[in-house]
Amino acid sequence: MTDTASAVHVAIAGLGTVGVGVAKILQQHAALIEQRSGKAVSIRAVSARDRGRQRGINLADYAWCDNAVDLAAVDDVDLVVELIGGSDGPALALARAALERGKSFVTANKALIAVHGEELAQLAEEKGASLRFEAAVAGGIPIIKALAEGLAGNDVSRLHGILNGTCNYILTRMEREGLSFGEVLEDAQRLGYAEADPTFDIDGIDTAHKTAILAALAFGMAPDMANLPTEGIRTIAPVDIDFAKELGYRIKLLGVARKTDEGVETRVHPAMVPLAAPLAKVMDAVNAVVVQSDFAGETVYEGAGAGEGPTASAVVADIIDIARGNQYAPLGIPVGALQKMPVIPTESHKGTYYIRLRVDDRPGVMADITAELARENVSIESVLQRGKAPQGGVYIIMTTHLTIEAAILATLNHFTQLECVLETPTMLRIEAV
Amino acid sequence: MTDTASAVHVAIAGLGTVGVGVAKILQQHAALIEQRSGKAVSIRAVSARDRGRQRGINLADYAWCDNAVDLAAVDDVDLVVELIGGSDGPALALARAALERGKSFVTANKALIAVHGEELAQLAEEKGASLRFEAAVAGGIPIIKALAEGLAGNDVSRLHGILNGTCNYILTRMEREGLSFGEVLEDAQRLGYAEADPTFDIDGIDTAHKTAILAALAFGMAPDMANLPTEGIRTIAPVDIDFAKELGYRIKLLGVARKTDEGVETRVHPAMVPLAAPLAKVMDAVNAVVVQSDFAGETVYEGAGAGEGPTASAVVADIIDIARGNQYAPLGIPVGALQKMPVIPTESHKGTYYIRLRVDDRPGVMADITAELARENVSIESVLQRGKAPQGGVYIIMTTHLTIEAAILATLNHFTQLECVLETPTMLRIEAV
Repeated sequence: MTDTASAVHVAIAGLGTVGVGVAKILQQHAALIEQRSGKAVSIRAVSARDRGRQRGINLADYAWCDNAVDLAAVDDVDLVVELIGGSDGPALALARAALERGKSFVTANKALIAVHGEELAQLAEEKGASLRFEAAVAGGIPIIKALAEGLAGNDVSRLHGILNGTCNYILTRMEREGLSFGEVLEDAQRLGYAEADPTFDIDGIDTAHKTAILAALAFGMAPDMANLPTEGIRTIAPVDIDFAKELGYRIKLLGVARKTDEGVETRVHPAMVPLAAPLAKVMDAVNAVVVQSDFAGETVYEGAGAGEGPTASAVVADIIDIARGNQYAPLGIPVGALQKMPVIPTESHKGTYYIRLRVDDRPGVMADITAELARENVSIESVLQRGKAPQGGVYIIMTTHLTIEAAILATLNHFTQLECVLETPTMLRIEAV
Repeated sequence: MTDTASAVHVAIAGLGTVGVGVAKILQQHAALIEQRSGKAVSIRAVSARDRGRQRGINLADYAWCDNAVDLAAVDDVDLVVELIGGSDGPALALARAALERGKSFVTANKALIAVHGEELAQLAEEKGASLRFEAAVAGGIPIIKALAEGLAGNDVSRLHGILNGTCNYILTRMEREGLSFGEVLEDAQRLGYAEADPTFDIDGIDTAHKTAILAALAFGMAPDMANLPTEGIRTIAPVDIDFAKELGYRIKLLGVARKTDEGVETRVHPAMVPLAAPLAKVMDAVNAVVVQSDFAGETVYEGAGAGEGPTASAVVADIIDIARGNQYAPLGIPVGALQKMPVIPTESHKGTYYIRLRVDDRPGVMADITAELARENVSIESVLQRGKAPQGGVYIIMTTHLTIEAAILATLNHFTQLECVLETPTMLRIEAV
């Protein structure tokens, strides 16, 4: 057995970009990390799909396991780093195997924690092992640490995050270059900024995983993917980006978590953010999180949300924490103490909204539309009508006063039944962060 | 003796705004804090100058010490919180007394840590006690934790901070309302945003204390107030704020720490920050820090830098960390491992500069001025001349290309000897953060 009093022996499962980054940091900063953690941290074993691939780092000193799950059984390994990805399969099997043996487990896998976080946290607590996932959310930004430790004396009431670099990159380029979503996506895929299968990113699933994790830590609940309505950015048209600017907003894909006396509300969707708000200024692939808590007030965290260096930096921070003996319940409070709070359904959300309609350009249309709004008691803050839409008709843009979402949804439904409305209306929530 | 396995007993020295805030959090969030730290955290004893003062919290259950230093000797106290202030006197005596007894010590006192941090860290290490000071820098923003833990796997190369809310508030109001420094200061004092004696804030000393602490954690060195050239904001004139805007900058008081192959450079001064840079957008009394590190890249932290809630939140985060057993060398690495790096003198700083002159409005003046610049090999990026200055003469505004600071200082010296130059030139460094 290893002398964990003076050394920490690490196994790494997955040697893609992040795995290689972790190995590089542990190699290049070995002396620094030993000073900071008080222990020598070294790699003992690694696993990846393709042993022969050139990775630009020296792996010769490390044991090789073809099967990642076997890393948990390597005798002198104290801490397993999982960088395979996926909520189930080998990642989950490895997590269970490591924690079962009382070995610490560090992961960058948001899907794993969002889906199995409660089970794994319980297992870690039972076995007295650490389970850490700083790298799972917002890459190099220590946002997990901020919520679980830095703001631990606070009751957090809400957080908003730009948590997916691919989406923010696409929205930024759509705005800057006036391109369509499809055009930018294609180019982003060519440049490696978006995956060949971009579904997880652009449909908001990645952001939902991260939002579930942040909400869990902020509110003391289990990650809850079952109650996290999720919309992506596929439907955002250049015309919405233009109108947003004209109205003083910028469109961002947000992860939102809010706690009120009525319960908890988590959701992922594109939103109109006022240009002066902190999140409106976050451009390109940058991530940012705004947290509102009762004593610290509003704090903002910003940095690179992905990539070899930033994500590896977060993994290594977790390793150093574990080496230092900084151990606590993985979800901030013990699993037994997690709250089951009522879920506030999306329909009960109170907010302000942006609606874009493409309608026939003829007399009486505006009267038809405003009648539907009145029917649902939706009060209009502003209306814009702009010249011909390229596909025919004209655009009518509205923003509402504070309204319950059910009323907006009902109104949108009425709109689609109007003859003068030429396509499915676009609705975006306005979030003042 | 107390059972520290299940409880942490706290003593608080100083019951001003922050002390009261800490007591409020520990009272109001007792259950939450017990869940998060795994231990009941309760106040045992307090000390303040005036026992009779009404503070809006119930102190009846706590032992009272007239002399703060006596708190360290209260038997069942495990952890002493110092909120007295001042680098020496009772704050230092209490720190020594608590750590000597192996009790943990948490402080919001930047002067104490900036001046005596190395000695106190050494004492804490010898006695196996915790010494924590999250609240000493940037209030509610967990920036100490970010540097010492979140970015622990990184080599930090530079950081820039807006660390004094009073100065940022004054600069913000000077810009928004077109007022002079003196006018805003007076109003800020009336409103309680500035102290009756504002020297520590407006002359940059408070920012220097905080910069020394951040540099220590970032670079693995002892806090070094002896090599921290410090300038405040007294000399900033409304005309500089106007010219800054015209040139695309905003003036901010910055704490700067930079590490290169040649050594370490720390300094505090007002600087021109490009309007698009993160720190230019930080307004009012908000604090922010931008950190550049080798793997995580640029990360930004922003929030309330002072006040009851934010500062108390940071103190309580430290208390929870200690309760959880998250203990490491107070300066991030053991005192014995701290580096003594060469100090890069201000004169060797390479940067770009803004210079404002008030000169006679007659032919030949520009030739005289540019001759002095040429003499010191200073290359000009832009020159502006603007109509009459209210006190007579005209303003000439220059920005330079990359130059060594010694050349700028020599040029300024030449300028003051020119007959056409009507007042001491104003120089501001340009910092692209």
